Amino acid sequence: MSAPSPVSPPTSTDAADEQALLEHIQSRTRDLFAARSDVPVGPGDDCAVVRTPSGDELLITVDQLVAGVHFDASATPDQIARKAVARSVSDIAAMGGRCWFATATALLPKGYAQGAELFDRVHAHAAAFGCPVVGGDIASGEAPLTLTVTVLGRPHPARGAVLRSGARAGDRVYVTGKLGGSLASGRHLAFEPRVREGAWLCDTLGERLHAMMDLSDGLGLDADRMARASGVVIELDAGVIPQHADCPDWQAALSDGEDYELLFTCDPESALPDACPGETPDGTSLRWIGRVLAPEPGEEPHARVIDTHGDRRPTRRLGYVHRTA
Amino acid sequence: MSAPSPVSPPTSTDAADEQALLEHIQSRTRDLFAARSDVPVGPGDDCAVVRTPSGDELLITVDQLVAGVHFDASATPDQIARKAVARSVSDIAAMGGRCWFATATALLPKGYAQGAELFDRVHAHAAAFGCPVVGGDIASGEAPLTLTVTVLGRPHPARGAVLRSGARAGDRVYVTGKLGGSLASGRHLAFEPRVREGAWLCDTLGERLHAMMDLSDGLGLDADRMARASGVVIELDAGVIPQHADCPDWQAALSDGEDYELLFTCDPESALPDACPGETPDGTSLRWIGRVLAPEPGEEPHARVIDTHGDRRPTRRLGYVHRTA
Repeated sequence: MSAPSPVSPPTSTDAADEQALLEHIQSRTRDLFAARSDVPVGPGDDCAVVRTPSGDELLITVDQLVAGVHFDASATPDQIARKAVARSVSDIAAMGGRCWFATATALLPKGYAQGAELFDRVHAHAAAFGCPVVGGDIASGEAPLTLTVTVLGRPHPARGAVLRSGARAGDRVYVTGKLGGSLASGRHLAFEPRVREGAWLCDTLGERLHAMMDLSDGLGLDADRMARASGVVIELDAGVIPQHADCPDWQAALSDGEDYELLFTCDPESALPDACPGETPDGTSLRWIGRVLAPEPGEEPHARVIDTHGDRRPTRRLGYVHRTA
Repeated sequence: MSAPSPVSPPTSTDAADEQALLEHIQSRTRDLFAARSDVPVGPGDDCAVVRTPSGDELLITVDQLVAGVHFDASATPDQIARKAVARSVSDIAAMGGRCWFATATALLPKGYAQGAELFDRVHAHAAAFGCPVVGGDIASGEAPLTLTVTVLGRPHPARGAVLRSGARAGDRVYVTGKLGGSLASGRHLAFEPRVREGAWLCDTLGERLHAMMDLSDGLGLDADRMARASGVVIELDAGVIPQHADCPDWQAALSDGEDYELLFTCDPESALPDACPGETPDGTSLRWIGRVLAPEPGEEPHARVIDTHGDRRPTRRLGYVHRTA
């Protein structure tokens, strides 16, 4: 559940319109469920959390994948299907949860001949990710190929759902894997959602894991979202942002987007392996990239990066510079 | 979860392609969950049914609403939002269930200026139908306005989920309300999903309510689907099909589609009020329109109508005649 990250950067109007619309929706829905004990987490996080009458908690997330926005004409049905499922699975990972079931819909361009293959691959990838498709719908029209995948998940049984709003002043900030260059390299079609890593962090850190989200729109913009949701300042060190070999610099690592790595904060006393850098049992690197500060009087919650000259730069703006280039 | 019913009839190729693709998907997924006790009902009915670890059963359904397919340019954001939610709510009604939560995504044409109003109306209608929106996603592109709404529901607490596959030889066949002319009259933008009626039928008939579905693609095609899912012959009497005043004849009532009334079968001993015709406490009419027969040796399960000349005509073909006109 996130704003789309474009293959081709949108016009400034599109990006601004979408952001404004997202903010409108969030402002209208933020407190909608405050009084409902069966909605522990409403709109605005990676997943919503709802509670069944017997007390089981469920995670719910939905994302759209649109031709020309999230993939281009060179993508195969298998790649399109995988990415459509993996984006929603990544939202489950972002809460530390496990996958359960999925629904999938397809809007097919008139005359599209690969519908059967596409659906077979959606089913296969969803099953492989642990959320087999239990229902769906097909429509066709004068439209770009669009897949919409809802995934239901279950939170970590001990830790519960990890929210983006839980960062606390004093926390360390970490990221899994490496960032940048996802769209240019094609990695955005083949990323591995960090489900095992999210669950392992819950296992290992328990209540000391304070906040987590997945990086879909770039570390700069997403860290800023975490900071605002948590009411804190997140300060990153440009020099230690982990970058893919084909990512030119830390600015690109902050702004490229579609990394689908996990950003998380935890108690500074947390027993992460080797602290910085470390890795999970699956060999995924963990990098300590910054810290959580209490806002000073009059300071808005935000994320910033200390660049290589020691200057502090808001990261939200970096994200926008990219998105409106 | 159903094939789309067009505002403008699709070309025969589109309709045939979609039907072939639906059949491909259903054949591939029919037995996928046979071994899973946590999926009492997989793909192919109005909703899937899944069971949580503590034993709570949930209904899941998803539908797409596409500009130019399910509504035209004269529809207001309020009408579009309402129909998008109501279609999925109708699938919950079709199982006899109650609504619980929804997710909603919007694919907006570039430059679409009414996104905030559209989302406000989606939220308002979903809340009014008892399934407030807990999550969503926005994308924009060179695309027709498309809303995709997933609704989670809960089955009737005593009767459980009512399937379309439960019709038994000897059953009576009923329909709620009146049929025909939904698209021409604009009723397709304002229909009332039969949630209360579905629940009342469960209350009243209990286990004697054998099969139920909602009518999205026309009584002719949908009755045929129920017959095939149940392995029976459904025989309807043309003379008693309830028609809206603006519906010219029983053929139109069978084929127009988008009625969103309930088709159900029950034990012939069932104590329905006044049997035929009767009505629910909400004043919705109930009409006894046919019977369920055991297939004769060599006979395929199907639905047919006895026309005013006493001839038996398969109804599936009637549906196609309309859809490819």
